[in-house]
Order: sequence, then C-alpha cells, then structure tokens
Amino acid sequence: MSELPRPTVTAQVEMHPQRWGDPASATELPESARGLVELAFGHAETPAVADVVLPPPGLPTALLDSLREVVGGEHVLTDDETRRLRTRGKSTPDLLRARAGDLSDAPDVVVRPGTHDDVAAVLAWAVDHHVAVVPFGGGTCVTGGLAARRDGFAGLVSLDLVRMKRLVSVDHESMTAVLEPGLRGPEAETLLAGEGVLLGHYPQSFEFATIGGFAATRSSGQSSAGYGRFDSLVVGLRVATPRGELRLGSAPMSAAGPDLRQLFLGSEGAFGVITEVTVRVRRLPETKVYEGWRWESFAAGADAIRTVAQAGLLPTVLRLSDEAETAINLARPEEIGGESSGGCLMIAGYEGAPGAVEAKRVAVSRLLAELGGTPAGEGPGEAWAHGRFDAPYLRDSMLDVGVLVETLETATFWSSRERLYTAVKSALEGALGVGTLVLCHISHVYETGCSLYFTVAAKQSGDPLAQWLAAKAAANDAIVAAGATITHHHAVGTDHRPWLHHEIGDLGVSVLRAVKADLDPAGVLNPGVLVP
Amino acid sequence: MSELPRPTVTAQVEMHPQRWGDPASATELPESARGLVELAFGHAETPAVADVVLPPPGLPTALLDSLREVVGGEHVLTDDETRRLRTRGKSTPDLLRARAGDLSDAPDVVVRPGTHDDVAAVLAWAVDHHVAVVPFGGGTCVTGGLAARRDGFAGLVSLDLVRMKRLVSVDHESMTAVLEPGLRGPEAETLLAGEGVLLGHYPQSFEFATIGGFAATRSSGQSSAGYGRFDSLVVGLRVATPRGELRLGSAPMSAAGPDLRQLFLGSEGAFGVITEVTVRVRRLPETKVYEGWRWESFAAGADAIRTVAQAGLLPTVLRLSDEAETAINLARPEEIGGESSGGCLMIAGYEGAPGAVEAKRVAVSRLLAELGGTPAGEGPGEAWAHGRFDAPYLRDSMLDVGVLVETLETATFWSSRERLYTAVKSALEGALGVGTLVLCHISHVYETGCSLYFTVAAKQSGDPLAQWLAAKAAANDAIVAAGATITHHHAVGTDHRPWLHHEIGDLGVSVLRAVKADLDPAGVLNPGVLVP
Repeated sequence: MSELPRPTVTAQVEMHPQRWGDPASATELPESARGLVELAFGHAETPAVADVVLPPPGLPTALLDSLREVVGGEHVLTDDETRRLRTRGKSTPDLLRARAGDLSDAPDVVVRPGTHDDVAAVLAWAVDHHVAVVPFGGGTCVTGGLAARRDGFAGLVSLDLVRMKRLVSVDHESMTAVLEPGLRGPEAETLLAGEGVLLGHYPQSFEFATIGGFAATRSSGQSSAGYGRFDSLVVGLRVATPRGELRLGSAPMSAAGPDLRQLFLGSEGAFGVITEVTVRVRRLPETKVYEGWRWESFAAGADAIRTVAQAGLLPTVLRLSDEAETAINLARPEEIGGESSGGCLMIAGYEGAPGAVEAKRVAVSRLLAELGGTPAGEGPGEAWAHGRFDAPYLRDSMLDVGVLVETLETATFWSSRERLYTAVKSALEGALGVGTLVLCHISHVYETGCSLYFTVAAKQSGDPLAQWLAAKAAANDAIVAAGATITHHHAVGTDHRPWLHHEIGDLGVSVLRAVKADLDPAGVLNPGVLVP
Repeated sequence: MSELPRPTVTAQVEMHPQRWGDPASATELPESARGLVELAFGHAETPAVADVVLPPPGLPTALLDSLREVVGGEHVLTDDETRRLRTRGKSTPDLLRARAGDLSDAPDVVVRPGTHDDVAAVLAWAVDHHVAVVPFGGGTCVTGGLAARRDGFAGLVSLDLVRMKRLVSVDHESMTAVLEPGLRGPEAETLLAGEGVLLGHYPQSFEFATIGGFAATRSSGQSSAGYGRFDSLVVGLRVATPRGELRLGSAPMSAAGPDLRQLFLGSEGAFGVITEVTVRVRRLPETKVYEGWRWESFAAGADAIRTVAQAGLLPTVLRLSDEAETAINLARPEEIGGESSGGCLMIAGYEGAPGAVEAKRVAVSRLLAELGGTPAGEGPGEAWAHGRFDAPYLRDSMLDVGVLVETLETATFWSSRERLYTAVKSALEGALGVGTLVLCHISHVYETGCSLYFTVAAKQSGDPLAQWLAAKAAANDAIVAAGATITHHHAVGTDHRPWLHHEIGDLGVSVLRAVKADLDPAGVLNPGVLVP
C-alpha cells in the first residue's frame, strides 16, 4: 500500500447556475432531438445570471469572523457568484426556478474545508452557533437534496468539498483505493489510471458529480452490471459527525453486527459528512466493445436481459430502450446502422482483458440470438458510448424552446416490471396530457429485477414548475402503489421525502430519525433532507 | 408468483443439550482425527443429562397463564427437557458448561409462536410484563448469542420459532422465495427443491441452523464464492418489533436512503424478530464437481485465490487449508489421492449447468496451473464434500478424551492476510502453550480480501473453560490490533461484545444503542446480546 502525495488541485470548471454542465460544451438543439422538436412552441425568456438578485448573506459578521478562524479567511466565501454556484442542484424544477430568477435557496456562506479535521471543526462551529450545514460535492443532485430547511437556524452554510480531492492511497494487493469526497468522476479516474486501476462508476452526472456524492446518494452508473453500483464498490468510509468520527470497514464483509457502512451510504449528509471513501478498484480494461441488439418489443428485450442476468452472464453494460426511446434515438439512423425498423434497441458493452471480453461476448451473444435478438453491430454501441453524458445539455436546449423535459427512475422485481412500467407511463401521460412523450429504458440489472428510467417531454404550460410537480407526484403515487422503490439511484432529497414512509414504513422513518438524533442532536446537518 | 400451502411440520430432531447435532449421528473418534489423538490424555467425566438440575422456572403462574392466553397453552412449555434443549448454543464454552452440569442460563419458559402476529403478541406481552425474550432458531450459535442477561427482568422467555417453517411463496420470474424463520437449512432446501430452485447456503451448521438465524447473524456458507453470503442473498425482510412491524425490500437495490435491510441483517434478535425472509434463489444445479489442488505453501495458495477472485473467475466453492490443517486431513491419504507430500490443499467446487460448469472449470484450472498449483483430482474434493458437516461431531469426541477443541474466524483485506494469520496463530499458541495445534483455512473469498478460519486443539487444563476464554481473548486482541473484523460470519453475541467498540468505534456502538432504544424502548429483546 502506498500513501500518495497531495496533488495540486487545478481550478475546476463550474456549472452554469441555470443550466447543466460546462457552458463551453452547451450546443444548439442537436439532430437527435429532431423527434421532440414538434413539441416546441417558442422561446422561453430566461433572465441573465447577472440580473438575478441574491438575498443578502444572513449571517452576522461576528459569526462569519469566527468561521474564518476555523478554516482560514480565504476559504470562507460570501460573494454572489460563489453563492449562486452553490444554490440547489440540477433537477428541472431547480433549473426552472433559477431560470425564473429565484435563487432564494442560496447559502449565506460557502466554506471550503481542506481536511477531515476542518470538516469536524466546521460542524462543531455550526452546532455552537446553530447554523444549518449543507454538504456540497458536484451540485448535480436532482431530488432537492441541496435545498435544506433554514427556518429556526441562524443561517445556512454550504460545506463545499472542492478542496478535498486527494487520492489518499492505493492498495494494489487488495485492489482498493482511498479517495477524498470532493473528487469529481473524471478526476478520480485520472488519478486512479495513474496507478493502473479504475473505479468504473459512470452515472449520467459523471463529469461533475463527486465521490462523496456518489456514496451519500447510493449512485449507480452506466456500467453497474459489470463494475457494480457505487454502494457495492465501497468497502470503507470515514465520516465526520457532530458527535465525532466514524471509521467503518474492517474487512470486505463482516458479521460483527449490522453493516453500518450501509447506514451512511444513502445518508445524504443528514447523518454526517463523508470525508474518505475506500473503494474496490479494478485493473484498467484493455478492451472495450459496445454492441447493439434489436428486439421486437420492450417486453421481449426485458425478458432477454432477465435471462442473461439469471444465467450469471452479465456484461459490463446492459441497457434496453423501449419502443418510444428507440424511435427518438433513431432520428440518427446512420448511427445505428440502418433504417428505422421499429422495435427496441439494446446496448451490450464488454470491458476487460481481451480474452475475457471475447469469451463473455460470445456467450452473451449466443444467448441473445437464441432468445430472438438481432445483432445491430457496433454502430449503435459506439453512438451510445459517445453521447452517454450529453442528455442533460439537451434538456437545457429543450427548455430554451419551451419544452418541459425531466427524468425519473425506479426499480422493482422482474415479476412487477411490466405493471410498474405501464403504471408510471399512464400516470405521467394522465398528468401531462395529450402529446406527452414518455420514453423509458432499463439500465441497471440484477438477477431479481431491474431499474426503469423514464424521460418525459411535454409542452410547457404557463406554470411549468407546477406542471412538473403534479406529474412527478402522480408518478411517485403510481410507484409506491406498485410496491416499487421511489428511487433506484437518485436518493430521497426533499423531493422524494413525502413518499419515503410508504417504502420503509413509519417505523423505518422512526429508525432514521433515531440515528440522526444520535449523531446530530442539534439537527444542523442538511435539515429537512432525507429524514421527514 | 404462487402462494404455497402451509405444510405439516414433522417433529424435528433435537440436538443433545451437551453435544452437537443428532445423537444418532455421533461417532467414535474417527480416523481423520488420528493426528490429534496424541493430545488426548484420558476420559473427561460428563454428568448424564438427566442428572443436571435445572433452576426452577422463575415466572409466576399468573404470568404464565397470561402467556398461554396469547399463543395457546400447548405452545407454552416449562418442562425441564424442553428448557434444557433451549439453553445456550454450541460453542465449546457452552458445551463445557453443559458438560459441567451448569444449565443456569436455561429459559423460564419456551414459547412457540406460529405466525408473525403470534410473535408480535408475545413481544407485547413481554413489554407489558418486563420479560426478556431470546429468539431461538437452530440453537447453533457459537458466540453466546442465546445467553441473554436476565437481571432486572421478571423472567426470560425462549421464543422458539420451530412452528414457523413455511415456504410462503416462490416468484419464479424474479427468482425469489419467501421463507419463514424456523426452517432449518435442509428443510428450506427440500421445500425449494420441490419448486425446482435452491438457496445454496451451506454453513457448517447447515443441518440444524435456521433461515432466521442465518439472517440475524450474517451467516456465510461453504459455497459463498458462488451463491453469496446469506446477507447478499436477502432481498426482503419482515420484522416484528415491540413498536410494530417493518417490511423492507421494495426492489433489488434502492437509493431511498440507507439500506435498512442491512441494519436487521446481523441484528441478532436485539432489534426485532425476523418473521419472513425473502431470498434470491437459483435453478437447481445439474452438475457438481469438486476438485483438489496442491500448493507449496499457504501463501502461494492464498495468492492464487486472490488472483482467481480478482480475475472475476470465482467458482462455487473455493477454500484452502494451511500446512497444519492439510497435514491433519492427510491422515486419510487414500482419500486425497496419494501420499502425504506436505504443502497445502485447496478445494475448488463448481455447480450449475454442465456447459457453464465446464467453461468455468477450464478457465479456473488453467489459471491455477499457471500460478503453480498441482491438480489433485476429484478425490480430495469428494472427501471434503462428504464430510463437510461432520467437524462439530468430531469436537465432541475430542472433548470426550480431554482435548480442548474450538474454532474462531475473522476476515481482512488481502494485504493484511499474512500479518493477521501470524498474529492470531501466535496469540493462540502463546495462550495455550507448547503442543497446541492451530489449523487454519480460507473459505470465504472476495476481490478485496478473505476470511481466516482457525481450529485450535490443546490439552485440557484443570479448568478448560478459563483456559479457552483466555486464549479467545488473546486471539480477539490480536484481531483488533491487526484492524481485522472480530467475526466474519459468527456474529457478536455476548462473547465478542467487549471487542465490538474497537471495530465500529464508540460512536458506532452509540448508533446501535439508538436504534435499539427506538425499536425496543423497554429493552426486552435479547438483553446484553450484540449491543454493549
């Protein structure tokens, strides 16, 4: 095991406060959105960022001075630009509010701790002065997890983990690595690649989201079939809480009581701040192959995915678009190797050593062909891999022309998949009316079930925020009625909180409250997030 | 999904109160123990069971009558024989105490609920009358998890789940099954086999331990490499607590907050009583092949296991004995296909469809050969599979002739394996003195680490109980000093409790206390077990 030097952190590209991602990467409405353009009804007015008035920082000067003593004056920021960039996340409601000039959830101050001890000191300060603390990683949350309650508190601090970007150590024998929470996906992979290993976690938010956020929200990436969900990649955690430090993970697995790691994975900053994550790593893959397969129907493709998973043959990536999503993607037929012939498109991706990749590819391909799939070559696979992180930029372009676009996701057991699919689709169409497009794909697969990821597009009403909130509520009601989970990989935040008790029961909520009360008796950590 | 009828439960074979397992299966000291016999120094006196005086039931008649009203008089048992059979578990200290005529931990009464609602009603009764409740499954616990504290309580009830033996339902599409907690390993597998599926969980205690116990203790079986630890097989739980019911598991995986299933897996009856477990099942394997491999040293074999795991090639069973354990097993050279040539024996087992078994066997065998292993054919594999549940019977025979025998286990990351192995071995040899035999094997394997399972044999001193407790304390101290887990698959019970805070910290213990206080405010559930 080698302890690695602290790298110099280059200034990171910040996301636009009203849009997704790097402003330099924003594009005009691309070709692939052609199928949606008919929904557009004009250009929506968005005030320029500089015109958005921010509420003044609500913390008294004496309190700010005491905070400066804790972490150093240069790491305590109250300027409008910094506070704007740490306001809410990137759900469509977040963007709609920001586009409407509402940045009322802006923190009073942004503080940037550099170490675990800094974090602990800020928490102690927050408890002493009854200030709410919102841990901030990539700011890519889509469930309102950064919009903590501030009433009853002296103010609200955004605890920005941007300075904590170390690859602390790599254990090449155990194939584990210790990462700090502020590392964005590509930063972590670059540092790990320097050691010849990879994490393999590629959620849609990969380019901006952070290691701490992946852990705190139980993120799942596009290669989850091969590398595993983020929670399954975590073997150890270090957590700073108002009551002290926790270090968890003395072995890969243990029977020394409940697995407390699983209590902090998904704790969304409400129980403590994750300051180090020990993850499994794998050797860098030498080969990557992504291939397309066509299926007559979503049901036929889903059955094939189930069969592959239950045969123990999961590739690295396995995803399937329903008929509607396939048709939209088919707007670029040259990339999927042929004319639009309907049906559903599946992507199967294989990463690893050449021999292992080829053996798995042969076995999976044989099974898929037996089950009725038609190979569509590497074109669709490459197209998917190329554009895999682009969808949120497309959403901005659609919002620009007055189309409401948002996504939501759930998961269930195989025997409930079709029922859940129909119920959520109907709920969204019912709430948003004629002409609504509901697209769906399966992208996270287990032996016992799968996730369903929906993309919704509709003409914006006069009040698009209310329009979406009603649709989302209808979808959530349908999900809990079907006995599925309200979120497979986007966490609870504040948006899913009203539905949580349907899933874990009032007693489950009571347990979460008891844990929070024990670790955060003053209740300063992300108040109102996760715990109802 | 099919809801299955409630089967008639045949009376189960009860274990001897002073020995392991079915008295009819007990044998004379077998050939395979020849290597240990030199330690023996005579015959230890054991009082006959009928001579052991049990303390009278401490519960007043009025209380017993009210309990009879709750579950029916025929399910409330106070006779000595029943109480004797529900006293403590099967660790060597448990057996030594029982052999010495000490059954002072006997419950006042054994109650046998038939349903979840019965369990809930007994818990309500226990809270009302401040009676301690010890959930009882197979009684195979080896960490003192059945020896709850009774001081401060009106009495102690053994909550015997022997009537809850239903396979509730099988979902053939999702490949899940709902099992009641009182099903013993073979009973569960027989019912599942009737539906064409299998669970695949084979701990040493398989023949007597129960589904509820597997879940409550995070058990791990001999085929964990292929089918997974028991906790990884669980997708849903139903739990009765003094504050009501919990139903957990709305999807294979979820991001709706912390995974609360993982809080009840390993909760050892201290947070609630598990009344239903939903598990992953697999198709019954058509083929089983177990093969032996020889390695020059434990280190060489362990490196090979690590390489196989990190290559993603784990077979169904993968285990490796160290030099000392291999030498003892070699007492039957005819079964391992040759003369004793030293080194270490590995067993690799493959189960599944013939094509998949052969493909995996070829790939693993190629890798093992490259890494320096020598194939030893199917002899050693078959011998292992044949005798895999016999070791606890052997312990009784050894105790009969005055040899102290016990096992303990731990787990760590690969880079700490050798250090942990040496430290535990030294601690045991140091505590037990010259002539002590310490055998070890690796039997649970992960990409990032493995378990170490030690068997210890020594001449009994005049006070074998004190002798073992000192050795166990030395081993536990060595384990926590090495940063490993105090138990990979035997739970905390009361025996490991003093070491728990080293592993999860005082704050981790505080979280467990908070959860217990929330779910069991009166503290009647397994008092003193798990939570310090």
